[in-house]
Amino acid sequence: MRVSPFGTITSVPGFLAGATCCGIKKTHELDLALLYSEEPCVAAALFTRNRIQSAPVQLSRQRLRRARARAIVANSACANACVGKQGIWDATEMTRIAAENLAVPSEEVLVAGTGVIGARLPLERIHEGLKSMVPDEHGGHAFAQAIMTTDTVPKEAATTVDLGTARVTIGGVAKGSGMIHPDLATMLVFLCTDLRADARFLRSALKRAVANSFNLLSIDGDTSPSDSVFLLANGIARNPRLDGYKRLVFEEALTGLCQQLADSIARDGEGATKAIKVMVEGASNQRQARQATRTIVSSPLVKAALHGNDPNWGRIVTALGRSGVEVREDRLDVYLCNTCVMKEGQPVYFDPTDVRASLAVPEVLVRVYLNLGEGSAMARGCDLSEEYVTINSSYTT
Amino acid sequence: MRVSPFGTITSVPGFLAGATCCGIKKTHELDLALLYSEEPCVAAALFTRNRIQSAPVQLSRQRLRRARARAIVANSACANACVGKQGIWDATEMTRIAAENLAVPSEEVLVAGTGVIGARLPLERIHEGLKSMVPDEHGGHAFAQAIMTTDTVPKEAATTVDLGTARVTIGGVAKGSGMIHPDLATMLVFLCTDLRADARFLRSALKRAVANSFNLLSIDGDTSPSDSVFLLANGIARNPRLDGYKRLVFEEALTGLCQQLADSIARDGEGATKAIKVMVEGASNQRQARQATRTIVSSPLVKAALHGNDPNWGRIVTALGRSGVEVREDRLDVYLCNTCVMKEGQPVYFDPTDVRASLAVPEVLVRVYLNLGEGSAMARGCDLSEEYVTINSSYTT
Repeated sequence: MRVSPFGTITSVPGFLAGATCCGIKKTHELDLALLYSEEPCVAAALFTRNRIQSAPVQLSRQRLRRARARAIVANSACANACVGKQGIWDATEMTRIAAENLAVPSEEVLVAGTGVIGARLPLERIHEGLKSMVPDEHGGHAFAQAIMTTDTVPKEAATTVDLGTARVTIGGVAKGSGMIHPDLATMLVFLCTDLRADARFLRSALKRAVANSFNLLSIDGDTSPSDSVFLLANGIARNPRLDGYKRLVFEEALTGLCQQLADSIARDGEGATKAIKVMVEGASNQRQARQATRTIVSSPLVKAALHGNDPNWGRIVTALGRSGVEVREDRLDVYLCNTCVMKEGQPVYFDPTDVRASLAVPEVLVRVYLNLGEGSAMARGCDLSEEYVTINSSYTT
Repeated sequence: MRVSPFGTITSVPGFLAGATCCGIKKTHELDLALLYSEEPCVAAALFTRNRIQSAPVQLSRQRLRRARARAIVANSACANACVGKQGIWDATEMTRIAAENLAVPSEEVLVAGTGVIGARLPLERIHEGLKSMVPDEHGGHAFAQAIMTTDTVPKEAATTVDLGTARVTIGGVAKGSGMIHPDLATMLVFLCTDLRADARFLRSALKRAVANSFNLLSIDGDTSPSDSVFLLANGIARNPRLDGYKRLVFEEALTGLCQQLADSIARDGEGATKAIKVMVEGASNQRQARQATRTIVSSPLVKAALHGNDPNWGRIVTALGRSGVEVREDRLDVYLCNTCVMKEGQPVYFDPTDVRASLAVPEVLVRVYLNLGEGSAMARGCDLSEEYVTINSSYTT
């Protein structure tokens, strides 16, 4: 498996994309994007678990019951959420316009959006924008730019995986609004592959990949009304039916790609000055390991401490303590980068100056060993800076 | 019922207190405090639900099995947590010294601490400090000061309640480290009353009062390893046995006092520029109402928006959506101070300038009507400012 940082969704054979600036953003930047597959695709997706769901999420979820798709139309700067029934009408109309231009059935066009909540889509502008857009095989980069909101860099990646006789490509683009706490961040991810597979396998592979990447990012599953992860497979790799081993190989590759995109989101956190990885090992089970890593990586006090290169490990231990997982204090070991700061529940003397210096790096690794069982997990996040508050307290409505 | 903002624990007949500066804080401020009851007390307490528990919490919890107490010794600047068995020995020794000076049994001395995690108590200094301390009936204010850490003001209050033939006094002091997120904040609360009551009633009254005050503060129950709320009743009001109605009257008064102390903690949040109250009405039930208010008031994005007087109600609705409570979008009404911003799930037009101005006040009220049932609750918190991050990213270990 080889993950290329320069790949994108249109690195996958048979997928075309395009983007335009239709005036939803006030800044004259790309804000409307289209992904199109030359062949019909088997499709799977995971959506936000928030009780408030945007119209695009509701419509795409409904359409994915048939697990078929040909295109996805996406916009930034307007989430099309909390506008009542009008939102569903507008989202449906948006897919109808896209379908008409692409000459595909409306029901095979999915939709995604991110941006302000409580505002209506400017359908006229979207109509104009879609009319002028011709997706092509280099359009993935423009697609990645058009879905950005507070993102400072586009997030894209691609990888190839050998499945015996066939070489399969997987490409992805993501936007993470980079909100630092696992609340409310809108995360959109579009994954394409030329794998030939059934809908059931695609869905299960996507679930596992997301569980070990985006759901362990400090922007987690039950977040904004718009969160969506789409996976489209057009089958043109013509691989033979996947046996158990090849399924695993593909899942691994998909997970790796998702982790790379998750890393990009973590690094681009609003106001972030460094990425944080929290590894938990020796938890009673896998579920508890995930819960522990997620709680620690999203603790504002841990994030603020690491922002200031403060080896304040008490905050890590205390976040762990409230995470709800089984902990035996007298078995607990904690490491900050390469320094052991707690061993078997007792503080270990360390030179604060050295440890401070070791924390002043672009990526900090926190390791927690529970020494209870076999559960392990790694979560990704970023530090909490004054800049985060400045960004999020400015007038946006 | 009359709540006096000038009352404190020693406003209650029969309770004496004192404090001293014994050098645990590097700043030569009060850091060691003692509460003493002239009569034996019935006692109840609630402690942190964090799996990592400080030595004072472990020792006090064990001693409270007998529901008797004569004194509480408390210190700031050292939590006596995460130091292994040594912590229990040190906490026990601290109560032994206090008991010896007061000539009461060691088992009737409770203990509390707040401050740095992973550091040992300086027992020598505590010994010296306790030797020189003589609790008196004016010592409540000094006690309140000695338990402060990042608090900028001491928190104290007292109230009286008429129970037919007897007038009962309740006094309390609290410290809230004022950490803004409901993680990790150390909260210590000491409540005294001259009520005569059995341990079972005291415990149930305390539970209810805390559920409607401190557990709806954005510093909630499952937080730091040190969180403790103590209630001591010395019985010298000589009231007759409490009937159902009088129990209710006392519970109400105790709840009111706890809410007042919770307000003081919210107002004194680290870096806070304003207090926030979130009211949820019409939830399916009481538990859901509490859960919804707690989620909204502790959302960093809601807090940051209100810090900037930003009427970004989408964040409120989205926090509600991920709180796990039942929500029907088409029944939802949301108010920012006196302005309706969402009615039956649809945005309501408002003048942003007016609403911005209405949010620029010392206390902001957010109201959410779910229109589903009878559950209602109010949670307290404060805004999230750049100052919060600055405070929490400075080097503290």
